[in-house]
Amino acid sequence: MPFSFPRFGDVAHVGHLELLTPKLSESLAFFTSVIGLHESARKGDSVYLRAWGDYERCTLKLTGHTTSGLGHLGLRVRDDATLQALVSHLAERGITGTWTEDETHGPAYRVLTPDGHAVELYWETQRFVATPDVATAFKSQPQRYVPRGIAPRRLDHINILAHDVRGNREFFQHLLGLRLTEQIVFDNGQEMGAWLSATNKSYDVAITHDKTGASGRLHHFTYMMDSREDVLRAADVLRDADVQIETGPHKHNVGQTFFLYCFEPGGNRFEIGAGGYLIFDPDWKPVVWSEADRSKGQAWGLQTVSSFHTHGTPPVVQTK
Amino acid sequence: MPFSFPRFGDVAHVGHLELLTPKLSESLAFFTSVIGLHESARKGDSVYLRAWGDYERCTLKLTGHTTSGLGHLGLRVRDDATLQALVSHLAERGITGTWTEDETHGPAYRVLTPDGHAVELYWETQRFVATPDVATAFKSQPQRYVPRGIAPRRLDHINILAHDVRGNREFFQHLLGLRLTEQIVFDNGQEMGAWLSATNKSYDVAITHDKTGASGRLHHFTYMMDSREDVLRAADVLRDADVQIETGPHKHNVGQTFFLYCFEPGGNRFEIGAGGYLIFDPDWKPVVWSEADRSKGQAWGLQTVSSFHTHGTPPVVQTK
Amino acid sequence: MPFSFPRFGDVAHVGHLELLTPKLSESLAFFTSVIGLHESARKGDSVYLRAWGDYERCTLKLTGHTTSGLGHLGLRVRDDATLQALVSHLAERGITGTWTEDETHGPAYRVLTPDGHAVELYWETQRFVATPDVATAFKSQPQRYVPRGIAPRRLDHINILAHDVRGNREFFQHLLGLRLTEQIVFDNGQEMGAWLSATNKSYDVAITHDKTGASGRLHHFTYMMDSREDVLRAADVLRDADVQIETGPHKHNVGQTFFLYCFEPGGNRFEIGAGGYLIFDPDWKPVVWSEADRSKGQAWGLQTVSSFHTHGTPPVVQTK
Amino acid sequence: MPFSFPRFGDVAHVGHLELLTPKLSESLAFFTSVIGLHESARKGDSVYLRAWGDYERCTLKLTGHTTSGLGHLGLRVRDDATLQALVSHLAERGITGTWTEDETHGPAYRVLTPDGHAVELYWETQRFVATPDVATAFKSQPQRYVPRGIAPRRLDHINILAHDVRGNREFFQHLLGLRLTEQIVFDNGQEMGAWLSATNKSYDVAITHDKTGASGRLHHFTYMMDSREDVLRAADVLRDADVQIETGPHKHNVGQTFFLYCFEPGGNRFEIGAGGYLIFDPDWKPVVWSEADRSKGQAWGLQTVSSFHTHGTPPVVQTK
Repeated sequence: MPFSFPRFGDVAHVGHLELLTPKLSESLAFFTSVIGLHESARKGDSVYLRAWGDYERCTLKLTGHTTSGLGHLGLRVRDDATLQALVSHLAERGITGTWTEDETHGPAYRVLTPDGHAVELYWETQRFVATPDVATAFKSQPQRYVPRGIAPRRLDHINILAHDVRGNREFFQHLLGLRLTEQIVFDNGQEMGAWLSATNKSYDVAITHDKTGASGRLHHFTYMMDSREDVLRAADVLRDADVQIETGPHKHNVGQTFFLYCFEPGGNRFEIGAGGYLIFDPDWKPVVWSEADRSKGQAWGLQTVSSFHTHGTPPVVQTK
Repeated sequence: MPFSFPRFGDVAHVGHLELLTPKLSESLAFFTSVIGLHESARKGDSVYLRAWGDYERCTLKLTGHTTSGLGHLGLRVRDDATLQALVSHLAERGITGTWTEDETHGPAYRVLTPDGHAVELYWETQRFVATPDVATAFKSQPQRYVPRGIAPRRLDHINILAHDVRGNREFFQHLLGLRLTEQIVFDNGQEMGAWLSATNKSYDVAITHDKTGASGRLHHFTYMMDSREDVLRAADVLRDADVQIETGPHKHNVGQTFFLYCFEPGGNRFEIGAGGYLIFDPDWKPVVWSEADRSKGQAWGLQTVSSFHTHGTPPVVQTK
Repeated sequence: MPFSFPRFGDVAHVGHLELLTPKLSESLAFFTSVIGLHESARKGDSVYLRAWGDYERCTLKLTGHTTSGLGHLGLRVRDDATLQALVSHLAERGITGTWTEDETHGPAYRVLTPDGHAVELYWETQRFVATPDVATAFKSQPQRYVPRGIAPRRLDHINILAHDVRGNREFFQHLLGLRLTEQIVFDNGQEMGAWLSATNKSYDVAITHDKTGASGRLHHFTYMMDSREDVLRAADVLRDADVQIETGPHKHNVGQTFFLYCFEPGGNRFEIGAGGYLIFDPDWKPVVWSEADRSKGQAWGLQTVSSFHTHGTPPVVQTK
Repeated sequence: MPFSFPRFGDVAHVGHLELLTPKLSESLAFFTSVIGLHESARKGDSVYLRAWGDYERCTLKLTGHTTSGLGHLGLRVRDDATLQALVSHLAERGITGTWTEDETHGPAYRVLTPDGHAVELYWETQRFVATPDVATAFKSQPQRYVPRGIAPRRLDHINILAHDVRGNREFFQHLLGLRLTEQIVFDNGQEMGAWLSATNKSYDVAITHDKTGASGRLHHFTYMMDSREDVLRAADVLRDADVQIETGPHKHNVGQTFFLYCFEPGGNRFEIGAGGYLIFDPDWKPVVWSEADRSKGQAWGLQTVSSFHTHGTPPVVQTK
């Protein structure tokens, strides 16, 4: 084979994530009424949601559970041959998983990151087909824009926490073919954050350091608005819905995304974003942020709020 | 080889285009003072320009010539191995080109589209390195944003004219691996337009029908603003610079891009755009526009201006 | 009295308008579901509506009627003493009216413009008091922003048609104290349009020429979005609600407002706007547009659509 | 006289302010190159500046001085008769001033606020007349938009510090006829802030409490962008020009303006703003903010930065 495998593009994009919540009905109300996602299916303790611009039937699977946190991360791959090749590739490196299925997509191969997050690779999926009430004249859209709540366009990315950022970064970069676009490396050489992309977006998966000793935790996930003005409007909507804004709106140094963070009723951190930059350079040199860089705060000087460095889901239970 | 070749992503992106102009100094003044591009090199009758967000030293090579029109289109590929494989792949299909070099990039393999447009495939390139006057604190940017003229962020796409849209569409789709994202197909089955993408943008290369019998002509090329509000502001700047706006600002049905068209002093059509949508679906089904669809005008009802169907560069010389 | 009367500011603002519609239920559905106005009262054949940012209980009184058109225009004055002074002032100039009341405001003095439009001057009004479901943390707002339909912020202006623009302009300017801000004067000296303001906005009342010989007709009325981006989004919402956009989005030369026109189900023209400029100069010199100016179209070159010069409500019935 | 005097509207608007700077050349470079104001005159140690949308020749008079701070505040009144009436009105209340003139306007009557800020009332002014290089096709604008630096549209407001907020508020409200729109009143009844308006904008003059015992100090002054997106862009420009952003961009609770604060080289605080709301209600009830309200921070939860409560110009010299 003349080319290495996997290559950038073999994992096509972040398809969905399963979010665990101890308050399913409140979380569901939040994501549909305040955020404005659309429900496309229910099964057992799970409700399947998507934004108006998402082409698959599910980008957020909301599952009632004893805790908050990440159920799994779904990555859609380039095609069926690539899925089979990835399974072999992982097996050659000693990583074996299990095949599973779900309500809104076909067979998925479930493996764990070094930190213990479940990742599912799949090819077959179910596309959303618009019902008449949401049909659209914009033929490239899956449905019309429905102005309800914040109404983001699409799922954008996930940020997981990991004790060993480097090991988990290598999992996504070398085993799945994502591109490393930015990273935080402290003066002692320790990787504290890594941003990786399966697309021309500047990141699809972020990994930041979990100081607590816990494993498999979620930092946040993000849906995207069309404009930064939309994020400013979203802040007004959240405030009048009595949703506390953790920090923002402001601009990240990493990714240059315009951000706003809040918490959904189940305790998981949720981000509304816009903007950022696209990477077209196939030989992109990762941006490296030092400790000194990070001490300057966000892009326009806002200091990173302390909860941002500590809060993850599920929360870490303190034992004596 | 388990996978077909080329695949989506093997051509990485539109790198640059060479624009011919019979009024080099006026065109240069337009692209630097009114549009706000930055000059990075000169050689012979050519000036090399780029936007503040372009990572390569050149995205627009402006060349003095007897006529207007397209000199060539530069496509940067995934890596060196891919470049060599593409050359072989083209040769197997009877297409041979010539190796050439230029001031701002390494060896390029020059071939012709069926309609006669020169296309150059290259891997080695020169990245822009910011001089202190345009250095930036935004580490993911090649330079700072400089508010001069319209100041677009980056080159976006090119739209060529072709007598045989289908044949030229197949050239980019099957020989170079671009993804067909949208097309116009008339009731008699004739393809009248094709939009293809090398990236997650909805298109990088557009091909529309040339009714005149001429070959190798350019319809327009496009630089991108960060927001639609920026395009509205650009319209004000153009008007006060006495640049005639051909049509827009308005929203395209194809690509959903927010557009504004004008003519540079050499006579070539130039577009300022923003917005549009990203495609993440690796199995995207092309959007097909019928004659009936097209008769409805643009996205919000604006009728397509007649010059849009006739003007290309170089102009067609009428002979008896 | 040391100062002339009335002075700029004595009429405080356009309070509301009564819109006649032969299709009350369809018009009501349009203004609540598609436009996103809020209902605050009903009485007889009338429904009282307001936008989320309007402080009075009514800015649009929708009244079922045999025809479309304007019921009346309500102008709120500075204070009660000013209202009484205006009544005297009008009487001195031979204009007498009648006192009337309505569901959402106190005594109003109803007079006719020279062209026959009913204008009501009033001081006492009913402020909207937010119910808990629309209560807001933004203490300067009457209620929260509710993202339903287009969701404009507030009523902005009205454009009436008149056979004699000059006479009607003088009515608002000299009898009511509005400021003339812009006007169209043709080469033969005839006034073809006049824009007048009671506020720092560039206009609150516009008068354009009615060629048909009809009297008392309405050209359009306008609600305002917070940003031009909001108008672009509104265009998408209208299209997917199957509402025909007459013209726009584009920028007016007059007022520099960013506009979009459509028709409500009763046949009245409705505008969604944003932007424009504020006038602070107490000695503002009206901008005068000539025939030559007008032939250039709108601000970025869009030709004014022909229906814009002919359609008014009620429609003119053709008789043999 | 049937009406009280002065009434809202008798002071027409904030015309200009004179800013003192110990670093004239650096301050001038900042306001022209980074902020993008235009120079229209020089005299002695003063340079007269204006934004592209300002109709008068001067909205910012920059004067070299031993300290930073406010030289004076210029308020343009409704007309000449009003100016004379205001002088009489002030005299009746025991406030006498002096007549002065300046390079860019006619006779001005200079009085002091209770806290000692110089305020000049004037009627005659010099309008900016565009030279050909900045001529515009937009007939309602004084000149074309020039994209240099941040390029705000116009001067918006000034915020002065005062030991006795109430007394100074009454000066602007009762002696000059401005409208009180918002205020901060602490639990003990002490007024800590007052926002007053001469226009439909929610404020033109703000007064906040000076804890230091100093008098006549300046908190900040503000130029306005057309959109909040413009403020976000301005933040990028400031950062790459090495100008420290004190706080923002964020949204004020008071006025709902979108703000960004920085310091000009002379040490004076400067704000770039956008948005906010207009007041049309002639009987507006001032919004009152309590201590509890203020403890919640700004509109989306950002805590007010501590320097905002202490920094004023000129700085207070500490003596033993």
